This record gives sequence, C-alpha cells and structure tokens, in this order.
Amino acid sequence: MFKKALLFTVLLFLCTTPVYAQAPTPESLELSINLVWVMLGAILVFFMHAGFAMVESGFTRSKNTLNILMKNFLTICTAALLFFIAGYGIMFGSSTGSIIGTNGFFLNGVEDIGFFVFQAMFVATCATIISGAVAERIKLGSYILIVVAMTAFIYPVVGHWIWQDNGWLTTLGFSDFAGSTVVHLTGATGALVVTLVLGPRIGKYSGKNVNVIPGHNLPLGALGIFILWLGWFVFNGGSTLAADPSLVPYVIGTTLLSTSAALISSSFYTKLRFKKMDASLSMNGVLGGLVGITAGAAEISLGGSIIIGLVSGILLVEAIRFIDTKLRIDDPVGAIAVHGVCGIWGTLAIGFFSMDTGLFYGNGVTQLGIQATGVLSVMIWVSITAGGFAYVLNKISPIRVSAEEEEAGLDFTEHGSSAYHFKDNLMEGTTTLKAPVGLADRLNQGTSGQPSAKSS
Amino acid sequence: MFKKALLFTVLLFLCTTPVYAQAPTPESLELSINLVWVMLGAILVFFMHAGFAMVESGFTRSKNTLNILMKNFLTICTAALLFFIAGYGIMFGSSTGSIIGTNGFFLNGVEDIGFFVFQAMFVATCATIISGAVAERIKLGSYILIVVAMTAFIYPVVGHWIWQDNGWLTTLGFSDFAGSTVVHLTGATGALVVTLVLGPRIGKYSGKNVNVIPGHNLPLGALGIFILWLGWFVFNGGSTLAADPSLVPYVIGTTLLSTSAALISSSFYTKLRFKKMDASLSMNGVLGGLVGITAGAAEISLGGSIIIGLVSGILLVEAIRFIDTKLRIDDPVGAIAVHGVCGIWGTLAIGFFSMDTGLFYGNGVTQLGIQATGVLSVMIWVSITAGGFAYVLNKISPIRVSAEEEEAGLDFTEHGSSAYHFKDNLMEGTTTLKAPVGLADRLNQGTSGQPSAKSS
Amino acid sequence: MFKKALLFTVLLFLCTTPVYAQAPTPESLELSINLVWVMLGAILVFFMHAGFAMVESGFTRSKNTLNILMKNFLTICTAALLFFIAGYGIMFGSSTGSIIGTNGFFLNGVEDIGFFVFQAMFVATCATIISGAVAERIKLGSYILIVVAMTAFIYPVVGHWIWQDNGWLTTLGFSDFAGSTVVHLTGATGALVVTLVLGPRIGKYSGKNVNVIPGHNLPLGALGIFILWLGWFVFNGGSTLAADPSLVPYVIGTTLLSTSAALISSSFYTKLRFKKMDASLSMNGVLGGLVGITAGAAEISLGGSIIIGLVSGILLVEAIRFIDTKLRIDDPVGAIAVHGVCGIWGTLAIGFFSMDTGLFYGNGVTQLGIQATGVLSVMIWVSITAGGFAYVLNKISPIRVSAEEEEAGLDFTEHGSSAYHFKDNLMEGTTTLKAPVGLADRLNQGTSGQPSAKSS
Repeated sequence: MFKKALLFTVLLFLCTTPVYAQAPTPESLELSINLVWVMLGAILVFFMHAGFAMVESGFTRSKNTLNILMKNFLTICTAALLFFIAGYGIMFGSSTGSIIGTNGFFLNGVEDIGFFVFQAMFVATCATIISGAVAERIKLGSYILIVVAMTAFIYPVVGHWIWQDNGWLTTLGFSDFAGSTVVHLTGATGALVVTLVLGPRIGKYSGKNVNVIPGHNLPLGALGIFILWLGWFVFNGGSTLAADPSLVPYVIGTTLLSTSAALISSSFYTKLRFKKMDASLSMNGVLGGLVGITAGAAEISLGGSIIIGLVSGILLVEAIRFIDTKLRIDDPVGAIAVHGVCGIWGTLAIGFFSMDTGLFYGNGVTQLGIQATGVLSVMIWVSITAGGFAYVLNKISPIRVSAEEEEAGLDFTEHGSSAYHFKDNLMEGTTTLKAPVGLADRLNQGTSGQPSAKSS
Repeated sequence: MFKKALLFTVLLFLCTTPVYAQAPTPESLELSINLVWVMLGAILVFFMHAGFAMVESGFTRSKNTLNILMKNFLTICTAALLFFIAGYGIMFGSSTGSIIGTNGFFLNGVEDIGFFVFQAMFVATCATIISGAVAERIKLGSYILIVVAMTAFIYPVVGHWIWQDNGWLTTLGFSDFAGSTVVHLTGATGALVVTLVLGPRIGKYSGKNVNVIPGHNLPLGALGIFILWLGWFVFNGGSTLAADPSLVPYVIGTTLLSTSAALISSSFYTKLRFKKMDASLSMNGVLGGLVGITAGAAEISLGGSIIIGLVSGILLVEAIRFIDTKLRIDDPVGAIAVHGVCGIWGTLAIGFFSMDTGLFYGNGVTQLGIQATGVLSVMIWVSITAGGFAYVLNKISPIRVSAEEEEAGLDFTEHGSSAYHFKDNLMEGTTTLKAPVGLADRLNQGTSGQPSAKSS
Repeated sequence: MFKKALLFTVLLFLCTTPVYAQAPTPESLELSINLVWVMLGAILVFFMHAGFAMVESGFTRSKNTLNILMKNFLTICTAALLFFIAGYGIMFGSSTGSIIGTNGFFLNGVEDIGFFVFQAMFVATCATIISGAVAERIKLGSYILIVVAMTAFIYPVVGHWIWQDNGWLTTLGFSDFAGSTVVHLTGATGALVVTLVLGPRIGKYSGKNVNVIPGHNLPLGALGIFILWLGWFVFNGGSTLAADPSLVPYVIGTTLLSTSAALISSSFYTKLRFKKMDASLSMNGVLGGLVGITAGAAEISLGGSIIIGLVSGILLVEAIRFIDTKLRIDDPVGAIAVHGVCGIWGTLAIGFFSMDTGLFYGNGVTQLGIQATGVLSVMIWVSITAGGFAYVLNKISPIRVSAEEEEAGLDFTEHGSSAYHFKDNLMEGTTTLKAPVGLADRLNQGTSGQPSAKSS
C-alpha cells in the first residue's frame, strides 16, 4: 500500500505541479499581451491630437495658427484632467438609473489605470472635433469652458449610455463598436450647436455669395489626415480591449478597405461634380470614410465595408456643400459633415449591413430602429446641454471675438505673436559672402557644360 | 483491477486536463502576441505613406504639391482595393507553375485577414516609389492606371515568385527577407521605365547643362525621411510575421546600424566630393541605407551591416549623380537610385555577407548567383510589363501633361487650387489695433533696458 | 510488476510530456511579449528624433534649418555607431569600481541585442538636447565631436552609475526610473557648459536689452512637441523593460496627468504674467512636464503627479526667463530650462512625493539627500568632462562660426543651399492659362449669387 501511495503521490506531484513553477502563468501572460495592445492603442489615439492640430492649422488661415495649436494642446490636457476628476466616474461608475455613473471620481477605487488612460484619449478626440468648427473666431476662454463641459459631463453621460454595461442604450442593443456615435456624433453635434451660437466668419458669406476661405498649408493638413488614419486603426482595433486574433485584424481590414473606398469615391466624385479633383474635399473624404466604418468595423463584411466607404465619400462631399451653402453654417474644416453626417451614416449602416443583426442579412429593421433611437437620443442630449451651455455663456459674455480682433487674427490678439517668421530667409536676405558653387555647378563638372546654378 | 483503473483514470484526468481550464492556452496566447506585432507593423508601414508624401512634396516644387499629395492618397487606396480584388490571390493563391496564384480573389477562402492587411501595406509602398520619379509632369489619370497595373498584377507576380512557398525563386533559394527586390527593385524598375516614356521635366536639362530643381520645403522632406525610417524598423522587423525574440531585435539592430552608417558615409562623402555637406543627398543616403539592409537584415552580422551601410551611402550619392547627369534621366526625388541601385546592392550583398550562405563565410558564389538571377528576372519582368503598359498608354493618349500645364503647375491644372495661401499672414496684413507689448518688452521689464520689440 | 511498470511509464509519459508538445512555453511567450513592448518602445523613442528636429527647426530661423536637420540626423547615427563601438560596454559592461564598464565593446559577448537597441535610442536623445542650445552658431564639425564625446563616454559613465546594477548611485539607492537625470540632466548640463564656451547669438543681447528671436515655423515646432510626447509615453512606459500590467499602464497614466497639468499651469501662468497666453512658452511647458515626471513615474501617486506637473509648468516659464535675461545665456529652444531645471525638479521630487521613500509619506529626508547627491555628482561630472572638452576644442579651433557666416546663415555656409524655395509658387508665378472656375464659383452655382472666387 505504501508503495502505491508513494507512486500516487509522486505522479500527482509530477502532474499537478506546473513544470514551470516560477514562470509566468497564462493569465498573467494574457494580461501582458492585452496591456501592450491597449497601451499602444492609447498612445496612438493620443497622437491623433497631432493629426487634429495639423488638419485644423493646415485648413485655416495662418493668422490664427498659434490659436489653433493652443486650442489643441489645451483640449487634450483639460480633458485628461477633467476625465480623471469627474468624467471617468460619470462614464464608468456604478450606474444610477442606467443614465449616469456616480462613483470613481478621482479614480477612487479604480484599479485598471490602463482602461482609464485608453478612455481618456477618446474623450479628448470628441472635444477636439468642436475646435475645428469654431476656429478663427471663438474666444479661447469660452472654448476652454466648452471643453470642460463636454469632457467632465456631456460626453461621459453619452458614454455611460452606450459603453457602460448597464447603460440604457447598451441594454437596448445599440451597437457602436468604436464610437461613430459616442465620439464622433457627440462631438459633431456639439460643434453644430456652438457654431450656431457663434456665427460664420467675417467674409464667408457676402449677400447670396458663398466664399471659399482656403487653408494656408495643405501639406500640413495632409500630414494630419495621415496621422488621424494611423491612429484610427487602433482607435478601431483597440476597442476590442484585447489582442483578440479573431477580431483585431478583421477590424483593421474593414477600416482599411472602407476608408480606401471613401477616398476613391470622394475624389472621383469631385472630379465629376466640379470638373477638378478637389484635394481638400478628397482628404476630408478619407476622414468621412474612417468615421463611417467606426461603428460597424467588427460586424460588417469586407464587401459591405467597401460599399459603406463608397457611400461615405460621396455623402461627405455633398454634406459639406449642403452645410456650407444651403444651411449657411460656416465650418472651416467640415467637422460637422465628417463627424456628424458620416457618424450618423456609420451608425445607421449597422442596421443594414451588420452580418449579425442587419436588414440585408434577413434580420428585419429592429436593429435599424435601435440605431436610430441611439442617434436621436444623443443628438437631443448634446444639443440641449452643449447648445444651452454655449447660449448661456454667450449671454454672460460673447463667446466670439470682436470684428477687429477677428480681422487682425487670433494669434496677434490672444497670443501676441505669429506662427511664421520668414523675413530672414536667405532668399530675402543679403550677405557679403560669395555665392557658393552650387550643386548644379558641381553636377555639371565632368560634363562639358558651363556651370549654371539656375534653379527654377 | 478496478482500483487500478480508477487510479489510472483519476491520474489521467489530472494530468491531461489543463490546470487552467477556462484560461487562455499557449497557442492562443502565441496567436495574440504575433497579431499585436504584425498589426503594429502593418499600421506603421501604412504610416510610411505619410513619409512618402512628405518626402515627395518637400523635394519638389510647391506648384505641384497638391498633386503629389493626391497621388499618395490615391496610391494607398487604389492598392488596398485592388490587392483585395485580385492582387492577393495572384501573390499568395495556390500556385500555377510556380509563376502565379490562381485563387483567393476577393479574399475568397482567406481566413488570415491580418496577413492580407500586412501585405496590402507593402504593395502600396512598391507602387508609390513610382510617384516620386514621375512627379511634376505625369497626368493623374495615367498615374492611377499604372498603379492599378502594378498592384493588381505586376507586383503580385514578383511576390509570388519570392514570397510564396512554391514560387520558383523561393525554391531556387533566393533570399529577400523584407523586400529589397520584391518591393524596392520592383518599384524602382517601374519608375525607371515609366520615366523613360515620360521624359524629363521642362528646365531640367538645357543643352549640356544639368540644372538642379531644388525642393520647396526640406523640413517637410526631412520629417518624411524620419517617418520612413520609423516604419522601416517594422517593415523589416515585422517580416518575421511573428514576435520572435531571437530574430526581431536582431533585425532592428542591423537596420539601425546599417542606416546610421549610410548617413555618415553619404554626408561625409558629399562634403569630400562637393566641398559642402549636402543635405538633400545625405537625407537620401538614409533611405539608401534602409533599402540596402532590407534584404539581409536577418542574416548579416552586425559588423557586416555597418559595412553594407557605408557602401550604400556612397553608392547612393554616385548613383543619383550618374542617373541625373550621365544617363540624363530626370528623377525628382532620386527614387531610382534609392530603391533600385541600393535595392540591387542590398540583394546582392547577401551573396557576400550572409552568415549562412555568403561568399565571405566560405560558401562560394552560389548564393550570389541565385541573388543575381532573382534581380535580373525581376528587372526583366517589370521592365517588359510596366514599360510596355506605359508605352501603350502613351500611344493611346500621352501620359504627360502639356508644356503649358507643366509650367502653370499641376495643382492649378489638375486640382484648381494651390497648396499654400500666405497672403493673409499678419506680417503682410494691416490692422488698426495697437501692436501688443511683445514678449521682448515683457522680458526686458525688470532689467533696466528700454522695451524693444525688435525681432530679427 | 511488468504491468505496474508499464502503467507507471505510461502515466509518467502522459504527465510529464507537455500536453502541447510542440507549442510555445510560457517562458518563450513572456520573451515574445516583452520584446514587442520594448521594441515598440525603442522605435517610438527613435521617432523622438523627428520630434527634436521639428522643435529645433520650428523654434529657430529659417536660414539655419538645413543645419538643424543635418545635426539631428548626424546625432542619432553617430550615437548609434559609437554606442555600439564603445558606449554600451562602458555603460553596461562588467563594472570596475562601480564607476565604469570595461567589456562588451562592439557588443562582444552581448546577446540581448534588443536591450542594446533600446538603450541606443536613449543615448541619442541625451546628445541631441545639446543641439538645440547650440543652434545657429556652432560649427558642424565641432558639434559632431561633442556628440562623439557624449555618446561614447560621458553619458555611458553616468548610465553606469545609475542604471547598471553595480553602479555606485544604484547601490546608494538613487532612483531615476526613466532618465530625468541620466538623460535629461546630463544633456542639459552638457548644453549649458558648451553654450558658455560658445556665447550668445549675434543680435540676442544689445546692451541691456534682451531681444526675442522668434522661431520661423511654429506649427512644425508644435508637431515636434506632439511627437516627443508620443515617444515619451514609451520612453517612460518602456523603461520597465517588460510588459508589466501592474506598472506600464500606471506609468503612462502619471505621464499623461503630469504633463497635462504642466501645460495648463504654464499656459495660464504666461497669461497671468505676460498678459497673453504665450504659445512658445506653453509648448515648452509640455516638455517641462514630461521631463518632470520622468524620474518618478512609477512611484508617484496620481494626485502627486498632477502636483508635480503644475509645478513643472510654472518652474519652466520662470527658468527660461531667468536663464535668458538674468544669466544672459542664449538657449534658442530653452533646452537647459526644459531638460536641466525640470530634470533636477523631477529627480528631487521623488524625495518628496515617492510613495515608497518620499518625505511626504513619512520617510524622512534620506531619499531626498540621495537624489540630491545624484544630481550634484552628475552635474559635476558632465560639467568637467563636456565643459573641458568644449573648452579644449575651442582653443584648438574656435567651435563657433564667424560673424559673417552666422549672419548669412549656416544653411548657406555649411550646406550651400536653403531649406525653402517658394519663388515658383503659383501665387507669384504667371501663366497664360485661364483661371479655372474656382470651387467658390462651383459652390455658388445653384444659389442665385454671381460667381465670385474671392479668397480672403
């Protein structure tokens, strides 16, 4: 008996003691992998603020560039601090009535700091959507107050409805994978109502005419578009909150294909409609495509994502034109069209194209109805709160700078400086030094041509 | 017997049931880690398109900048869609005659979407190499058609030969770890033949003279170089397709050292050769160094990678000069030298420096012969297909814009706009507002100097 | 007996053979995850060099921009090669007297190439801090020699004291998680002493006056700030050298909150102090906040990190002013204030705020004393070596360009070229082609307004 017991004990020991006694466990490894993916996602979503800053600067006038840059820095920093203080608690705290969270302020009791960080970057992207629409004529102080309201309260409530497990829209079955509604429609609705209070820029409309106010530095804007697209891959892909091999690559795939389709449709559509392939509108087509797939990236087929993108591109061009010329709402960077119209489209598209619940897969219009419910609720909530807040602010003290200040430029009036100083460029300067032998001359040596430093 | 059977059963159960029954398994964890690495790689290779856009814009004239940006956006989007439709199937589908794939179109039957995404980003980098060489005088429509041909067919065939398990060059033992030949030489050969059909820019050559046409915004170009270098680390490091601790850090190490050596050699070489350290050529030296190590990053020693880099830098400078002045081929960004000449060098270098198969390690010239075979085959294939395609296109309708259009600038003629608008910069504007107390004045308060807002 | 032996053998086989015989092990998986995190960290820290290049270019004059860009490329490349040759061995080789390492040159015997790569990127960031302070008047050759001294010897010795297990400051208990002292104070002290040898730029000081020399391209500078912030997340987060779920998200969290607080405090402080919210100083406030949290990111509370950031922002503004006007040390980008003053602050703050060893947690002033010891030792070491080296160099041959060269601009004198060429911008050119129907006109079609292509 003793021998059997011994054998049993030995075998039991051999079999149940992990061979890797001091080694990491699969659970700890899983935590590590997910943290890498989510933290990578968080910092690349952070970097989208560089993208927003470059897009907004590039597409507006150089006399307001420092102001745009300051607004972008202030947005991410204000949002991070306010989300820490109040916003996170409202969004993810224990739910009261499925409407609002009521604990976790100052991250009290919150252990998953990584989740806080990831979410904090999203908050700021929502708030910064407003900065483009109100550019070139809003007072900096008024803008900061609006950011405070959005990031501490208005956005977190929406997030609570849709991304907290007990939120009422979650319970209803509303689907918004990475934020077509939570982030983009919320931001765009805020942009819309604040812009209505603010009014258009001087010179935008003269009588019946609609004037184009071109951006001053489109390469910068294009760089910003690329940075946004880069971050969006993990804005979507990271929303799995895990390095899920069955989901993450798929989401990145639909994001790539949908956005590509949107750029193709928007660029060729502008060529058709306006006789020239318009660069500004095409670049915004990229953004419209990104917003359009953000809701359904995980549950749309590859082909469906391409169709959604093709629609996003054309819709975006028409929306910008409609808002600009028919509604006569001056949105310097097309933020309302990009994030609002395409945000609605992306959210509703799930009701049609979702492989799980969409109409086109034989599921009836139930999901479509749920999506529409969510869209309307969010638009109503944000219009009332953000619009009301901007209206009241404006009554207390106008949120818009004076005409004189607007004409001089906000860099001058708010920041006492200028974004560019080129007066000392060599091309315009003088020097007593002899002109150097230029590269052209050096290239020509060895050929029998005369040195000629002609640059065209 | 029963007791023994029971003991056996119990022990069997204890030993074969994972102790962590609901936990992740090592296989699923491995899938997760690899997905994180490969997806990170995919999106940073995607971001290289921002790099290409900035390099090409910065190194060409401002009247064509919007056109360059549009070409870059159209390249990645067209490539992604076409690779989805046809290219992936041709490249990785089941092989017919080890020449071409014949299934997987529309990703039919393809489960590894992550691999598709990763490969899609590479396709587009190959195509975009052409955009720099043809800049400032190709018709946008003609360029798009060339991209279609490259991404749907020409490049995937090369990829099938070299990166598909049954491809004939793979079988031969050809080694191209991350694409010195597949991506860079293919793109450069395409660039070469299309440029031959296209002709040089107006003003580039006047009689025997070779004129330098300087880039308009070199800081933008430099930023692009940095972005390319960033992406290249995972362009190379991600080509392991796995988070392989024995390989990935090594590949990143050789990439870092080789490229550093190339910048040092190119910059000092220009100082020696041209009396001034030329910034443009040095920055291209960085790219030449990156291309030069792309084939052998995994199988070259650290010291060998430095030697390869030193050669890449000098070779790059001489190649640009040779192509520009002797062959009189106008390549506005030196793409043929960077991706072609250094691509060939990087591919052949394996035949010398590979620790596994190289001549310098006592392995004879067999590998060198195989590498040369691959290089020649690819150059012949691409010359015939891309060159023939461009030639035929040109016969149907000239692929080059008119002289008038070229002089006015493609931004004006193709896009009806301009990349920069600086006329409303405060420096040039007027305002009735008093000049603010400048920072200079404020700095001087507290010193006994008089306020002086002199800015130099 | 035979049956029992057979049973035993079978069970032994079943129990000790991993069920996943060909599958990865937890140890290999852990290696893979850590490599992904550390390599991601390495390449994003690499990308900080793009950030430095953009900040330095943006905040200085356009006639020196090519020179700034070349200095940045040369710094990373020189540093990588020298760290490979000598620096790594000195920093991490077997310790002699806890002062200096004495093996591992040319990475001889070094197996962890990933760790080398990660550390190589840090070396270069330290060296490049100097490039901003000496901008616009140092000879390129002299600068390169200083980089050689810093990266091959001066910095590695500091790193040996603090980051090598046997380093004397490590043994003392000095805490510098990610390099407030090792990287930033070292670089800033080097910047200080070299700048003292170099002297201020022509035109910076005239009599008692302190003149502001504004940067030429602040959007570029702002982009650089964002890139630095992005890289800093992994500069701090990657310093765990492992994907540690209990540490990495926390470090990223404190980095986010502290830096946000610094931007808020610096921007509002400039508004208070100078009547305008100064964009340049505020953006530097971001950097000051990043440096300030770099030492203690892992051991400071969330609230503590916010307090540290608030202090960093104000300290930074006052430090720049003090150095600029009271010490009359011309530092074109405020590098000494950002990296030096805030580096000291961040290092000492551990003595107060560290949850493990700080005064405010009842631990007495021991840690504070240790931190101060480290700060002083490093400042003395770097001042003597870097200062002495610059002084001797200057005696052999002036490290500063001539007045004539400085006035003409270093792009012209060192590189024979210019960073910008805008003369062929359409706005200034002429063409015989008819002006196209502008987008404005096209937008107005459908409204009854007359076409008007007025752009403001």
